[in-house]
Amino acid sequence: MTMANGFQDKDAARLPTEERAMIARRARVLGPSYRLFYQRPVNLVRGEGVWLYDAEGNAFLDAYNNVASVGHGNPAVVAAVTAQMAVLNTHTRYLHEGILTYAEALTATMPRELSQVMFTCTGSEANDLALRIACHHSGGTGVIVTEHAYHGVTQAVAGFSPSLGPSVHLGAHVETVAGPDAGLPAAQIGPAFARGVAAAIARMQRHGIKPALLIVDTIFSSDGVFADPPGFLAEAVDVIRAAGGLFVADEVQPGFGRTGAAMWGFARHGVVPDLVTMGKPMGNGYPIAAMIARPDLLANFGENIRYFNTFGGSPVAAAAGQAVLDYIHQHHVMENCRTTGDYLQQELRGIAAHTDALAPPRGAGLFIGLDVLADGQPSAELASRLVNGLRDNRVLISASGPNANVLKIRPPMVFDRQNADHFLETFRKVVVEMAL
Amino acid sequence: MTMANGFQDKDAARLPTEERAMIARRARVLGPSYRLFYQRPVNLVRGEGVWLYDAEGNAFLDAYNNVASVGHGNPAVVAAVTAQMAVLNTHTRYLHEGILTYAEALTATMPRELSQVMFTCTGSEANDLALRIACHHSGGTGVIVTEHAYHGVTQAVAGFSPSLGPSVHLGAHVETVAGPDAGLPAAQIGPAFARGVAAAIARMQRHGIKPALLIVDTIFSSDGVFADPPGFLAEAVDVIRAAGGLFVADEVQPGFGRTGAAMWGFARHGVVPDLVTMGKPMGNGYPIAAMIARPDLLANFGENIRYFNTFGGSPVAAAAGQAVLDYIHQHHVMENCRTTGDYLQQELRGIAAHTDALAPPRGAGLFIGLDVLADGQPSAELASRLVNGLRDNRVLISASGPNANVLKIRPPMVFDRQNADHFLETFRKVVVEMAL
Repeated sequence: MTMANGFQDKDAARLPTEERAMIARRARVLGPSYRLFYQRPVNLVRGEGVWLYDAEGNAFLDAYNNVASVGHGNPAVVAAVTAQMAVLNTHTRYLHEGILTYAEALTATMPRELSQVMFTCTGSEANDLALRIACHHSGGTGVIVTEHAYHGVTQAVAGFSPSLGPSVHLGAHVETVAGPDAGLPAAQIGPAFARGVAAAIARMQRHGIKPALLIVDTIFSSDGVFADPPGFLAEAVDVIRAAGGLFVADEVQPGFGRTGAAMWGFARHGVVPDLVTMGKPMGNGYPIAAMIARPDLLANFGENIRYFNTFGGSPVAAAAGQAVLDYIHQHHVMENCRTTGDYLQQELRGIAAHTDALAPPRGAGLFIGLDVLADGQPSAELASRLVNGLRDNRVLISASGPNANVLKIRPPMVFDRQNADHFLETFRKVVVEMAL
Repeated sequence: MTMANGFQDKDAARLPTEERAMIARRARVLGPSYRLFYQRPVNLVRGEGVWLYDAEGNAFLDAYNNVASVGHGNPAVVAAVTAQMAVLNTHTRYLHEGILTYAEALTATMPRELSQVMFTCTGSEANDLALRIACHHSGGTGVIVTEHAYHGVTQAVAGFSPSLGPSVHLGAHVETVAGPDAGLPAAQIGPAFARGVAAAIARMQRHGIKPALLIVDTIFSSDGVFADPPGFLAEAVDVIRAAGGLFVADEVQPGFGRTGAAMWGFARHGVVPDLVTMGKPMGNGYPIAAMIARPDLLANFGENIRYFNTFGGSPVAAAAGQAVLDYIHQHHVMENCRTTGDYLQQELRGIAAHTDALAPPRGAGLFIGLDVLADGQPSAELASRLVNGLRDNRVLISASGPNANVLKIRPPMVFDRQNADHFLETFRKVVVEMAL
């Protein structure tokens, strides 16, 4: 089983004794499904803002983690969670003001039609719930996803997360569609993607399967990061709706302002989804996730089917979510994603112009993908050397895409111009050292 | 859609203005799948130990919540979570000492064979993962559950949670078995249950479905609370294993010492499960859950299938779990469950002896079920009146079971003798007022 940027046991011999011992304990007590990053995994003990520190006190610039999106150890979030945890942490079968205030603030960031929210603990649970609701509403069971999508790890959601690899079987009612083809002229990307969706619908209908939903990560993280041209998704959304299915925007990765121009990735495409899911950065590390929907889609489901998620939408989860939302608004975090992200893309474009090994960057805001090539072909090996070269210089990113050759640059959203310069300086150094 | 002890909209008119307004906001922003407890829902703002306080400062004795198991707002847990949250909250793809220490401490509470743990955020996710592993290992897909079981809310797990009601369809590969029949002589309960499991296996095999697992909540919470006679489960476990399936102990409700005699409910039955799932009380409200397994069951799965749960097993989750485990050990919480639980059962038995409306209590430790009857038949109506009568006297419990007539008494595990006396005094008062 391979994973982009995954540690492999064969590299253990080169590690210091302490890390080797920890890896052995992991194998013994956590078992074989757990994977580490990097040829030399990092042993982190502290985080602050965009910096992570190992046991020796070395500082690593975090250009990868999208959970601690308002900064590792953000004091405002820690204070909000601590205060609420000391006062009350129950569940949604009692009344509580916190969940209502937060739910209202969260849905206020959405198009007006998307006015109801259901809370879960993880993005997997949110996507699993979206599936249940789409199936209930459409009367269908067919799911359409991109070829290298990742949407989560429940049995149902893993069944439409092809990036988990061939050992995780796709569900019988799942059809895949090629991700956006960045090699096409911009005007053809949307129509080509929509034709793929139409073909997937036709295949499932030929088997008597009624389409329930098209779900996409609106920045196509796992497929290799595709954001352009803005609007290219709209045609595919029309196609799934015409076939009676719903369009689900998986905002677990692009959401909460990361793309710089809007709070939600779908806005870039001028579409209003039927269901929206979100998670990772929502509580800056506190486990909270959600699904937001049009009320008409929940009406029949909710009358007949109760949904209770013990920890989902608790007073503490709401406090964490509210603190993150407040921080994003008060500190102009989205604007920072745009300006720092634009700067990063511009400088990376300059670097890429000088080597055949790097394609021009793609993405939006602080979500950037960059193809690594050898002889014009995707090179996972070169991408891995770059990722590990950066790690050896204490800058953390990872790789992605069906060919594991896309550098994934996705720092905390408070990553500023100075951090970007540090990143770029290190990036240039590694590129030079590798003689790319 | 009915739910035992669920608030119904028709009762809204009787509520104070503030609660009515909050309920209207819930309907508007959370949608119709959310359910409240009680004819007069409680608006809680603070919790401390076994006490919950509403907005007017009224104190409610909590005889129901099993999440805040070491007490609402437990300072040791709050301190541990706060400290770790301020320092570092990343994920399992970096090395971290906290998860290893906690994983070792947690598996040390298990029989030696059960030595590997995988962390999730919710019990639903833990049961969903157990399903994936059981299917992978057995090569089967058949799931056997009790008739009124509840195991969670993912699509797959809701499909084997019949207590969610008829609108949530059971999976095509799911067979149900009658819960333990407390009406039988003790010696016949185990054999009868095992015969039910064997019949379920035969039905699925007749359809060409290979059994993958038998999963039971080891105190049968949702089926109505059945703990006796100790050992009655063992025969059914033999039956599922003989058919090539695994036995999964769902310890989300009975686990962590609640039953008083052991850390885990399965110990009462002298069996060692193949997989064990746990959740609710694990982090005293911090979202953490887990699945523990025999290494041989994870070997092939883990080699081929990675499992990454973004928030699962984070340094903060591990800190929360460790703090709870430490508190349970240091404060003899399990012993308290036994002594207080025994006392409660004894006194409730005395009360039940004086009325035909109450059957003798069942259960173990601080998990007690008590049938409410009218003319010898299960009475959901009378149970609801008792639950709401207690609520009006500021004591919180709820109801359960296929007929919604089983009082579910399941307080935080730090509920002491004095709390028990307060509970019993109020209980006697309500029984008298209702002229039972």
